[in-house]
Amino acid sequence: MPRVTYTELLHALVEALLRLGFEPARAELGARLFADTSRDGVHSHGVNRFPRFVRMIQSGRIDIAATPVRVGARGCLEWWDGRRGPGNLNAHASMERAIAMAREGGIGCVALANTNHWMRGGSYGWQAAEAGMMGVCWTNTLANLPPWGASEPLLGNNPLVVAVPRAGGHVVLDMAMSQFSYGALQAYRERGEPLPVPGGFDEQGRLTRDAAAIEKTQRTLPIGYWKGSGLALVLDLAAGLLSGGQFTRMIERDPEKETGLSQVFVAIDASSTGTAAATGVDQVIEEIAARTAAKGEHVRYPGQQVLKTREQSMRNGIPVSDATWEQIRGVGGGERQ
Amino acid sequence: MPRVTYTELLHALVEALLRLGFEPARAELGARLFADTSRDGVHSHGVNRFPRFVRMIQSGRIDIAATPVRVGARGCLEWWDGRRGPGNLNAHASMERAIAMAREGGIGCVALANTNHWMRGGSYGWQAAEAGMMGVCWTNTLANLPPWGASEPLLGNNPLVVAVPRAGGHVVLDMAMSQFSYGALQAYRERGEPLPVPGGFDEQGRLTRDAAAIEKTQRTLPIGYWKGSGLALVLDLAAGLLSGGQFTRMIERDPEKETGLSQVFVAIDASSTGTAAATGVDQVIEEIAARTAAKGEHVRYPGQQVLKTREQSMRNGIPVSDATWEQIRGVGGGERQ
Repeated sequence: MPRVTYTELLHALVEALLRLGFEPARAELGARLFADTSRDGVHSHGVNRFPRFVRMIQSGRIDIAATPVRVGARGCLEWWDGRRGPGNLNAHASMERAIAMAREGGIGCVALANTNHWMRGGSYGWQAAEAGMMGVCWTNTLANLPPWGASEPLLGNNPLVVAVPRAGGHVVLDMAMSQFSYGALQAYRERGEPLPVPGGFDEQGRLTRDAAAIEKTQRTLPIGYWKGSGLALVLDLAAGLLSGGQFTRMIERDPEKETGLSQVFVAIDASSTGTAAATGVDQVIEEIAARTAAKGEHVRYPGQQVLKTREQSMRNGIPVSDATWEQIRGVGGGERQ
Repeated sequence: MPRVTYTELLHALVEALLRLGFEPARAELGARLFADTSRDGVHSHGVNRFPRFVRMIQSGRIDIAATPVRVGARGCLEWWDGRRGPGNLNAHASMERAIAMAREGGIGCVALANTNHWMRGGSYGWQAAEAGMMGVCWTNTLANLPPWGASEPLLGNNPLVVAVPRAGGHVVLDMAMSQFSYGALQAYRERGEPLPVPGGFDEQGRLTRDAAAIEKTQRTLPIGYWKGSGLALVLDLAAGLLSGGQFTRMIERDPEKETGLSQVFVAIDASSTGTAAATGVDQVIEEIAARTAAKGEHVRYPGQQVLKTREQSMRNGIPVSDATWEQIRGVGGGERQ
C-alpha cells in the first residue's frame, strides 16, 4: 500500500475539512485526530473511516458547526448536549473539560448526550494521560451484539477506554465489548484466516472461528461470554442515565445513520499520591515484561504496540490506499490549489 | 444442606464478631454484610468465607479495631488508609464516603490503600444503588491470573463492580477478570462437570474445559483473552496509583496472608438528568426481556438472579453446612448464652 508522510496526510485532511466548511481551528483538530489514529495503526477508525464521516456530514447527520453546550452542572459532574456535532471534536472537548474539572476538584465527569461516533476512543485516553490524568471514557453504539443467551443484537459493543499515565509510555486500554469488531472479522475473512479464538456463532448456533459465518449470522460474541454482555449493558445504561441521552435501543441500526450517541468522560488527577505511586506503575510494567521475556513469552501492555507503530509511521510514512487518498483529496469538490 | 433463617444467621454472626472483640455497631454491620452475601446466593464470599476471615484476624493480618483514616483530599477525590482493618467494613465506609461526596459534588471518588479482601464486591454496588447512585468500584488482589501470552500468574483477577440504580431492581454487575474463579473451578470439578466454556490451559498449553486441569496449571483464562488481561492490568495500576497503596506484585500470594490491597470507590449522582432518564433504564431492561422471551431465550441482567435468590432465602432459609454453622458458633470460645 502506498505510504504518505504524517504531514502530508494531516495537510490533506485539514484542507478537506476546510472545503467542507469547518472553522480553521476545528479543521486542524479534526484532521489531527484522524491522522493520529492512522499514524497509530488503528486504520479502521482513522482515514479509512473518513469517507463515511464525510457522507454523514453530507446527509446532515453530523452538523459540522455544532459545538457541545452545557445543560447542567453539579460540582465535579456536568452533563452536556453534543447537538450532533462531529463526534471526535465533541469527545475531545468533553475530555478536555473533564481534565479541567479534575485539575480543580481531583476528578471530573462529563456526560455527553446527542453526539456522534467518536472514531478511535483511545484518542481521549491518550489525551487524558498526556495531561497527567487517569482517563476513563465509554460510548454506547447502535445495537450490534447479542446479549449472552440471545440470538439478536440488542446491545451495543460499547467501547470502554481506561488510560493510566506513565513516564515510560502511557497505558491506554481501548476495548469494545465484542471479542472482534466487524472490521476485524472482515480482515480475517479477506485473508482467509481463522480467528485466533472463537468470535461468534454460526448458523447452527455453534461457537466458531470462521469470520464469514459470523458475519452471516451477525451473532458476535461478547468478551467473556456473560461477563462482557453484562458490562456492555451497564455501560449503555450508565451513558444514557448520566447524560440524559439515548440508549442503544433508541439508536438507528444503520451505520450510516448512527447518531445521537451517549458518552461519559472521566478524568482523575493521578499526581495526588506522589512520585512513589508513579514509580510503582513503572515497576508493574517492567516486572511483567522482564518475567515473561525471561521465559520467551510475548506479553504486551495496552498502548505498547501503539507507540511502536507510531514511531514506524513517523519514520516510514502511513499506509493509505490510493482510493482513500483520492477520496480525501476529492472531498468538497477537490483541492483548492 | 441444612437451612437457617436470615435472622438466626445474622444473630449468630453478630455474636461471633462480638466474641472476637468487634465493637457492637461494627459487629452488626460486618455480620449483615456476610449474611446478606449468603442470602443473595454468593456463598463463596458469604459465611463460607467467614472461617478464613476469623483465621486472618487471629493471625493478626486483619486488625478489627482499625478504621480507615483520610490521608488526603482534593475536591471530589480523597485517598484513605485502610490500616488493614476488616475489608468489608473498610469498603462499606469508603463507598459511604463516596456517596456523601456525590451528594455534594455530583461525583465522589475514594481511593483506599492498605485494606483487606472486601468479600463480595457487589455489596458496595448494591449500597450505591440503594442510595440512588451509580456505583463503580474495583479492587486489586494477589496474583492469580496469567497475562495473555504468559504462563505465570502475574495479574490479579481484580473484580470490577458497576451498579446502576433502577426502581424495578438495581442492575449490579460484579465480575472478576478471570473467566472462572478458583471457587467455581472447584465446584465444577466436584460435580464432575466440564466448564460451559474454556476456562484456562492444561499442561500441554491447550485451552480446556477441564476444571481440574486448570487447577493443576493455575493458568486461568482472562475474560476475552487479551482484553480482560489488559483490563485487569489497568485496574491494578489505577488502584495502586490513585490510593498510593500496593500493586498486585507487592501482595503476598498466599490467600491466608493476602493483605494490603488497594481499592477505588466511585459514586455518581444518577438523579441529575431526571425521571425520563430513569424510565429509559427501565425500558432497556424491559425490552431485552420481552424480545428474548418472545424467542424462548433466557437472558438475565446482572443482579436479576440475586433478587430471586434473596427472596427464596428469606422464604426458605439460607443453606449453611453443619461444619460452617459449628465454626460460626464456636468462634472465640463459643456462644455466650
